[in-house]
Amino acid sequence: MTFSLTILGSNSAIPTLDRNPSAHLLNVNERFFLIDCAEGTQLQMRKYHLKFTKINHIFISHLHGDHYFGLVGLLTSMHLLGRTDEMHVYGFPELEQIINIQLEAARMSLIYPLIFHPLKDDEMHLIHTGRNLEVFSFPLKHSIPTCGFLFKASQPNRQPPKHYTYAYCSDTIYLEEVIPVIKEVDLLYYETTFASDRAEMASQKFHATSLDAANIAKQANVKKLLIGHFSARYDDATPLLEEAGTIFPETIAASDGMTVTCDGRGGVSSEMVKW
Amino acid sequence: MTFSLTILGSNSAIPTLDRNPSAHLLNVNERFFLIDCAEGTQLQMRKYHLKFTKINHIFISHLHGDHYFGLVGLLTSMHLLGRTDEMHVYGFPELEQIINIQLEAARMSLIYPLIFHPLKDDEMHLIHTGRNLEVFSFPLKHSIPTCGFLFKASQPNRQPPKHYTYAYCSDTIYLEEVIPVIKEVDLLYYETTFASDRAEMASQKFHATSLDAANIAKQANVKKLLIGHFSARYDDATPLLEEAGTIFPETIAASDGMTVTCDGRGGVSSEMVKW
Repeated sequence: MTFSLTILGSNSAIPTLDRNPSAHLLNVNERFFLIDCAEGTQLQMRKYHLKFTKINHIFISHLHGDHYFGLVGLLTSMHLLGRTDEMHVYGFPELEQIINIQLEAARMSLIYPLIFHPLKDDEMHLIHTGRNLEVFSFPLKHSIPTCGFLFKASQPNRQPPKHYTYAYCSDTIYLEEVIPVIKEVDLLYYETTFASDRAEMASQKFHATSLDAANIAKQANVKKLLIGHFSARYDDATPLLEEAGTIFPETIAASDGMTVTCDGRGGVSSEMVKW
Repeated sequence: MTFSLTILGSNSAIPTLDRNPSAHLLNVNERFFLIDCAEGTQLQMRKYHLKFTKINHIFISHLHGDHYFGLVGLLTSMHLLGRTDEMHVYGFPELEQIINIQLEAARMSLIYPLIFHPLKDDEMHLIHTGRNLEVFSFPLKHSIPTCGFLFKASQPNRQPPKHYTYAYCSDTIYLEEVIPVIKEVDLLYYETTFASDRAEMASQKFHATSLDAANIAKQANVKKLLIGHFSARYDDATPLLEEAGTIFPETIAASDGMTVTCDGRGGVSSEMVKW
């Protein structure tokens, strides 16, 4: 089966021409899960030839705009394109109001069922169960309530069975509390807004540095660390990647259009999507 | 003085890789006025080397997402970039709530003053007066309350004085009531979502066709008609342009990155922005 993650946005708050803000698309055997949905996400999907129609679940980590300002546009486009399938949106409770107030202002009643699932950041929760798949939310620590997401898929009718795990941690400070949750995942995405020379700024803004991400990855003994959510001040993520690599060599830097694939046996590889 | 309009989005509801949805940037002697602000507008400005910082007035015609889903992202980016100047936003009253609910969810208090001016679609209103500039709103007819905008600038200390006028009509059906308002403007933007073979669909969706736009332009005796807000079904606007041209030859088709300049003596020229 396929278990692959496509990066639709690797930048932090302000979009640049090379890096959109946060959005990840996870393909679990042709079921598609969108994690965060910054402004421009629908256009990124178009650019990378990814179809909206296959997404049935959208997870929004927190309510800073660089993680969800593309959501209502995407939901609206799905409506205009004639979607009929249920759409499940997971987010903090205010998000439901934010969606509804905009649909009401447009006098728009979606032609497909939109099911909203409120998140809580008190502890870990199982928020979705599908065929051979479980999705959990867990608390992160940022300037506003924020959840990370853990995807656990398996292919049990194998000899031996295959297992696939992806954890998304953005936005957050250095947070050792997540280590038991993300222990030994195949792929860990941990936000890396700054290099360690800006550790004080990172701390003030409740963000993590490349060393923070690498330290968490090392302690959690993950297979591969993916860093992203880079500050627009970095034209190039190489210094952040190199810094993380000094602590955790199995680190890759996210870039828009990159796809990272897990093979179910602990192997993780990455390639750029052609467009 | 400069009086030029840059097209940041020429498509209707669904963005494509070539055409973003609606946003126009009007430069009146280095004062910048943004008219509508679809998702992705801030990135379009970056692409075309237009600075956010010079915009002090944003006009939102109506509350369909393809005309404002980029607004809160733009306001947020201005905050993150350290803006201190007042920002004036003109829109229907629900827009103020839509902005505020999203700022509140982010626990964000803008570091610059945001002044909201509610629009009314009952009749024509003078909504902004600047040095040698007046901006009016006027009612259009669409599926939800919608205003057009008329910009009138002059350079009085000339022999003879120069006058510059731009009218923005989007979204709307064919509406003869606007003719007295836009009479003899230099540049008329009139939405042209469809060609005339889809007149029935246009009517159902409260949009106009290329023949509608051309007929309005002819009756109003404008200098130049600019058509845009094209349905994503048209890869190329040429058929719409040709159709409008049969009634009103002085028609140009909007494309993202195009700049249209008025010379103050009734002359209007267009060119593509380099990027």
